[in-house]
Amino acid sequence: MSKKYQAIKDQAYEANLQLPALGLVLFTFGNVSAADRARGVFAIKPSGVPYEELSPDKMVVVDFDNQIVEGELRPSSDTKTHAVLYRQWENIGGIAHTHATYATAWAQAQIDIPIFGTTHADHLTVDVPCAPVMDDAMIQGDYEYETGFQIINYFKDKGLSHQEVEMVLVANHAPFTWGATARQAVYNSAVLEEVARMAMLTRQVRPDTPRLKETLIRKHYERKHGKDAYYGQ
Amino acid sequence: MSKKYQAIKDQAYEANLQLPALGLVLFTFGNVSAADRARGVFAIKPSGVPYEELSPDKMVVVDFDNQIVEGELRPSSDTKTHAVLYRQWENIGGIAHTHATYATAWAQAQIDIPIFGTTHADHLTVDVPCAPVMDDAMIQGDYEYETGFQIINYFKDKGLSHQEVEMVLVANHAPFTWGATARQAVYNSAVLEEVARMAMLTRQVRPDTPRLKETLIRKHYERKHGKDAYYGQ
Amino acid sequence: MSKKYQAIKDQAYEANLQLPALGLVLFTFGNVSAADRARGVFAIKPSGVPYEELSPDKMVVVDFDNQIVEGELRPSSDTKTHAVLYRQWENIGGIAHTHATYATAWAQAQIDIPIFGTTHADHLTVDVPCAPVMDDAMIQGDYEYETGFQIINYFKDKGLSHQEVEMVLVANHAPFTWGATARQAVYNSAVLEEVARMAMLTRQVRPDTPRLKETLIRKHYERKHGKDAYYGQ
Amino acid sequence: MSKKYQAIKDQAYEANLQLPALGLVLFTFGNVSAADRARGVFAIKPSGVPYEELSPDKMVVVDFDNQIVEGELRPSSDTKTHAVLYRQWENIGGIAHTHATYATAWAQAQIDIPIFGTTHADHLTVDVPCAPVMDDAMIQGDYEYETGFQIINYFKDKGLSHQEVEMVLVANHAPFTWGATARQAVYNSAVLEEVARMAMLTRQVRPDTPRLKETLIRKHYERKHGKDAYYGQ
Repeated sequence: MSKKYQAIKDQAYEANLQLPALGLVLFTFGNVSAADRARGVFAIKPSGVPYEELSPDKMVVVDFDNQIVEGELRPSSDTKTHAVLYRQWENIGGIAHTHATYATAWAQAQIDIPIFGTTHADHLTVDVPCAPVMDDAMIQGDYEYETGFQIINYFKDKGLSHQEVEMVLVANHAPFTWGATARQAVYNSAVLEEVARMAMLTRQVRPDTPRLKETLIRKHYERKHGKDAYYGQ
Repeated sequence: MSKKYQAIKDQAYEANLQLPALGLVLFTFGNVSAADRARGVFAIKPSGVPYEELSPDKMVVVDFDNQIVEGELRPSSDTKTHAVLYRQWENIGGIAHTHATYATAWAQAQIDIPIFGTTHADHLTVDVPCAPVMDDAMIQGDYEYETGFQIINYFKDKGLSHQEVEMVLVANHAPFTWGATARQAVYNSAVLEEVARMAMLTRQVRPDTPRLKETLIRKHYERKHGKDAYYGQ
Repeated sequence: MSKKYQAIKDQAYEANLQLPALGLVLFTFGNVSAADRARGVFAIKPSGVPYEELSPDKMVVVDFDNQIVEGELRPSSDTKTHAVLYRQWENIGGIAHTHATYATAWAQAQIDIPIFGTTHADHLTVDVPCAPVMDDAMIQGDYEYETGFQIINYFKDKGLSHQEVEMVLVANHAPFTWGATARQAVYNSAVLEEVARMAMLTRQVRPDTPRLKETLIRKHYERKHGKDAYYGQ
Repeated sequence: MSKKYQAIKDQAYEANLQLPALGLVLFTFGNVSAADRARGVFAIKPSGVPYEELSPDKMVVVDFDNQIVEGELRPSSDTKTHAVLYRQWENIGGIAHTHATYATAWAQAQIDIPIFGTTHADHLTVDVPCAPVMDDAMIQGDYEYETGFQIINYFKDKGLSHQEVEMVLVANHAPFTWGATARQAVYNSAVLEEVARMAMLTRQVRPDTPRLKETLIRKHYERKHGKDAYYGQ
């Protein structure tokens, strides 16, 4: 086993362990990958292996055409979706997929999560998009590959930037999130779960709660991500 | 105490301890059994004994006619239901019963849990069945025995296979799950609880959420359980 | 400090520590007492002292007329309610009071918790009673004393036995539970919280869920508490 | 680094660590400050630093005009709101800000939390106030400064005393709480979260639950905070 993929295997391993630590997965219902852009590959969790049995060396290295490059185990059954996203979106370095409870409930309901407050606006300026149900040909065809394109096409249709919106719900299924690193992708999964939970509770308190107004959306996003950002160090 | 039942007593002990570890029981509200098909017996939790006081030797060995074969304690009050299921369904090796909160809420509401997403479809292709309320003669008669038959008859009526659907709600009561092993039965209890919770939250977001479409149900189930399954190792 | 109250101080101490362990209290929002019937006294938590700072010797010993017998700290502000219940109901040995979330929500809604399933019926055969809001004279008078009588009078009005129904909600306030021992009172607080949560979720799934039918109520209660009980050892 | 601010840096550090311990924050979504009234300064969490990487010396000391007095890190992005509150309200010694789930849901719904029970009345005698959405000029201007004034002006408009009501929701945003010390401010954040959760569940059980009547509000508040208070030691 060569050492040249050690960095992404370590990153993927550590990021995968964050999923149970953050309460985002039951059993093996999730996976994280970390990309090495220079080599055109990513390391991903092996399929169906419990988190407590993982080690960096069990990560599977796959290229952006979904070909296994290194590793003795079968990669996550969602690997092809990761490959498509890495291939199409050049500047992402990590992807996370979970079946976290609240985000999955919104995905099952097939509804975008409305932006109701600053917790949401601190991270993205639009409703969390929910990519629509795939048609039968896509499902019966190359399903995980089509899942990736369903996400990408929905972003195109809605005019969304994957660098500004680092999360999506896939209707009937569950969320995918991404970011500059695997660690950032997992961070976004946790943020999404909290935003999904808050939005559900907000509508329980007041079903007709209006969306956040644009000035406030803009203000909170800019103070964290704008050129004059003053959040963080 | 003979050693010939040691394997199932160990399995039952370990599987029972998984119930509190997975947050599926309060106090002693649950029990798991592990069967030895060759000997026609199963080991089950003693009734009312706290999980932290259990040991493998406290498990009670019972045959499929509900006769105690070994053990000094009284077995779970639900033992006869386990015996009926083992007697009638030849190929199950473990059974779990809990009063887990969300699954029990659906059982109390007497409603099948609709299949809304792929988390559900990864495990079964139909709504989680809820066996109907028993009539008074059954309740006042041999109650735990009749509970077992209520489950079996409902599966017959609905044309369900207990090998494809390894879980059921008993109306007004709580869930039972099973599988090839006691460990698998407990796994199914945890999956059911999460599916029950997600389904409730899904309907909170959108009360008229449609069931998952058949192509997607089939796709997800096949990728995990079909002859060309590509989930797991 | 005499040793004659050591047993009840130990019991009260241990039972009080169970409240945070079972997730039934935030900060100091709860108290448990343990009675010594022969001596006509009970030991109770001191008021406002965090659970992690408690010790058996900090428990306050009070008689059934609410007079402090031993102890250097002020007893719980709810002590008089405990005293009234011990005075009026001869055969209880422990009382617990919490502001546990779900039971308190039902108390605030001023509604009896309907009996929807066997988890409830394993412990009591009726809806969990909610004692009505007190009139202004009672509130402005001897409030904690009147709280005790409000509970007792409601049991009389409804024809309930405090030996069969070991829990009550006080409208606008929170639950009280009791039992043969302080430990049993805390057990009942935890059962009540779970029953309250399940009932709320049951009505979320199906708002018009019917109450459990009498044959099933009777069956479950008898198998745990009847003369031919077969639950437990 | 001088020692003269050590006390407030220690207090702020310890109070900030209480936020994750009490389950009130995800990642860095919260901050606490501790004031030294004699010196006219307060110590506050640095912006975006994970709680597990904090130490007393990383706290930033700021004066009531929002000028940094000591510290190498950038202070919380909400620092100016803290400064305004300290400047305007002379007798508070600590402030906490979180995005705790239930309180934030009510803030997003832009609704005061109704007083439904004694858990609420033990701490304040009115609904938890929700300061209204700011107008665009305020948001686009000196946002965090205006947030402070929005709170103060709302208290003036409603005739509320910040010494009797130590908590507020800011519409679309999240809660702020305060008190004599940083520790008390955090305590109030935890109480608010529980009150918010109970109120939501109360309305789930019974949507038209009436507010607590005045006699009971007064009784509970007085027994804990009145001149003849008998709660605590």
